[in-house]
Amino acid sequence: MFISECQIRVRYAETDQMGYVYYGNYAQYFEVARVEALRQMGLSYKMFEDSGTMMPVLQLNCRYKKPAKYDDLLTIRTSIKEMPGTRMFFFYEVFNEANVLLHEGETTLVFIDMKSNRPVSCPAMLAQKLAPFFNA
Amino acid sequence: MFISECQIRVRYAETDQMGYVYYGNYAQYFEVARVEALRQMGLSYKMFEDSGTMMPVLQLNCRYKKPAKYDDLLTIRTSIKEMPGTRMFFFYEVFNEANVLLHEGETTLVFIDMKSNRPVSCPAMLAQKLAPFFNA
Amino acid sequence: MFISECQIRVRYAETDQMGYVYYGNYAQYFEVARVEALRQMGLSYKMFEDSGTMMPVLQLNCRYKKPAKYDDLLTIRTSIKEMPGTRMFFFYEVFNEANVLLHEGETTLVFIDMKSNRPVSCPAMLAQKLAPFFNA
Amino acid sequence: MFISECQIRVRYAETDQMGYVYYGNYAQYFEVARVEALRQMGLSYKMFEDSGTMMPVLQLNCRYKKPAKYDDLLTIRTSIKEMPGTRMFFFYEVFNEANVLLHEGETTLVFIDMKSNRPVSCPAMLAQKLAPFFNA
Repeated sequence: MFISECQIRVRYAETDQMGYVYYGNYAQYFEVARVEALRQMGLSYKMFEDSGTMMPVLQLNCRYKKPAKYDDLLTIRTSIKEMPGTRMFFFYEVFNEANVLLHEGETTLVFIDMKSNRPVSCPAMLAQKLAPFFNA
Repeated sequence: MFISECQIRVRYAETDQMGYVYYGNYAQYFEVARVEALRQMGLSYKMFEDSGTMMPVLQLNCRYKKPAKYDDLLTIRTSIKEMPGTRMFFFYEVFNEANVLLHEGETTLVFIDMKSNRPVSCPAMLAQKLAPFFNA
Repeated sequence: MFISECQIRVRYAETDQMGYVYYGNYAQYFEVARVEALRQMGLSYKMFEDSGTMMPVLQLNCRYKKPAKYDDLLTIRTSIKEMPGTRMFFFYEVFNEANVLLHEGETTLVFIDMKSNRPVSCPAMLAQKLAPFFNA
Repeated sequence: MFISECQIRVRYAETDQMGYVYYGNYAQYFEVARVEALRQMGLSYKMFEDSGTMMPVLQLNCRYKKPAKYDDLLTIRTSIKEMPGTRMFFFYEVFNEANVLLHEGETTLVFIDMKSNRPVSCPAMLAQKLAPFFNA
């Protein structure tokens, strides 16, 4: 299993008149979290697109446990629990500064060759970075 | 079952550099769709908050089948398949102008009394509007 | 002078915890308004990009007079006060349902050839539509 | 003069299909930048709202010089050039990692007493922090 953490400060723009983070903004936090997970491996999502592979999202699930609020410094723990094939699964847990779990979610992404617009296997540069975390 | 439809034109702001609607924006489309569903019953979400009940989201699921694109005129079909108790379930299907199903999702909302901050039953004004669609 | 109007319903996502439309969202409303202005001429912004011209924004000014609120049905009046050259100026006024002026703004856009990435003159398809409104 | 700097990594959500940061998102970057400027003084915007003063924006100006792109690590330099009265002016300059100036802007904010909904003078906690930077 590969686990990484990153921090996001809640912006005023991200709140709504309930005084909470708008429910649609967690998808954006998840995007930041998985990009930072890649960066902690020495990769960037930009490298994927530049080398001809994009990673659109196939599925998103969000479970809202407690509201995040303005100016909260959130910690997002991102877990990759299995080696990606043509699809890659990310799990996210969002904590506030008191270490209370506010939110959980998952995304499923697919590797797409940008020329053929067809699914492809996990690019080698990513597979090599992840392999040590999943070897028996 | 109660079904309603509304239309949303994709804004440039809602696209990303993949040329698609950013995956996090469907939550916002769902919000518009369920508010318009209420409006078609003669209600508004604003009436709920003004009368002391808010409806935060507990769960969101999104399944991305095909990308929506800039300037697409999307039709969102919103279905309420059961009478709400303390929770209310909405189902969403997003179609483009060629009537192709692009996206499916669900949200679970909970009725919260804004004074006590506790879950409460579906407000009478909504239950009365929905009852005719669920009577045996 | 060319004037057009369109309507936008304020989304919950667009409010912030002040209970107002977040100040950064007017830029998005202006985008919708100028695209609808083009549509009322029988054009679409998509046609410009498809024919190789994009129109990035060079300047934006926003003046916040009164706050727009959740579920307000806003009317945006868009004015084109002079024939575009390589640049095009749009003026926007945002009214609520009581016809109160809430907001004013302007944008300056430039026509850019997407191949050369250089400024070009206003495309003929737009100039032809606008000419009748500016002829002496 | 008081000057502070902060960094913002461009999110995928913030790009549009032109491949640039959507023009409406700079307002959000400015919000982050001025909140971080306050934090560098030992204050937070949350403290203002908690003590009964909100700071809505009266005016926003944005000048787009060069596009910011996905994954750019932007530096925003925020300048306060005069002691605030009932209004406070912030100036922003956005640089990329090559130290190229991409964007400039200004905002005018007003201090509003949340009970009376009337403009008030700059709160003492802020005036005290800023005074040393403006004393003759």
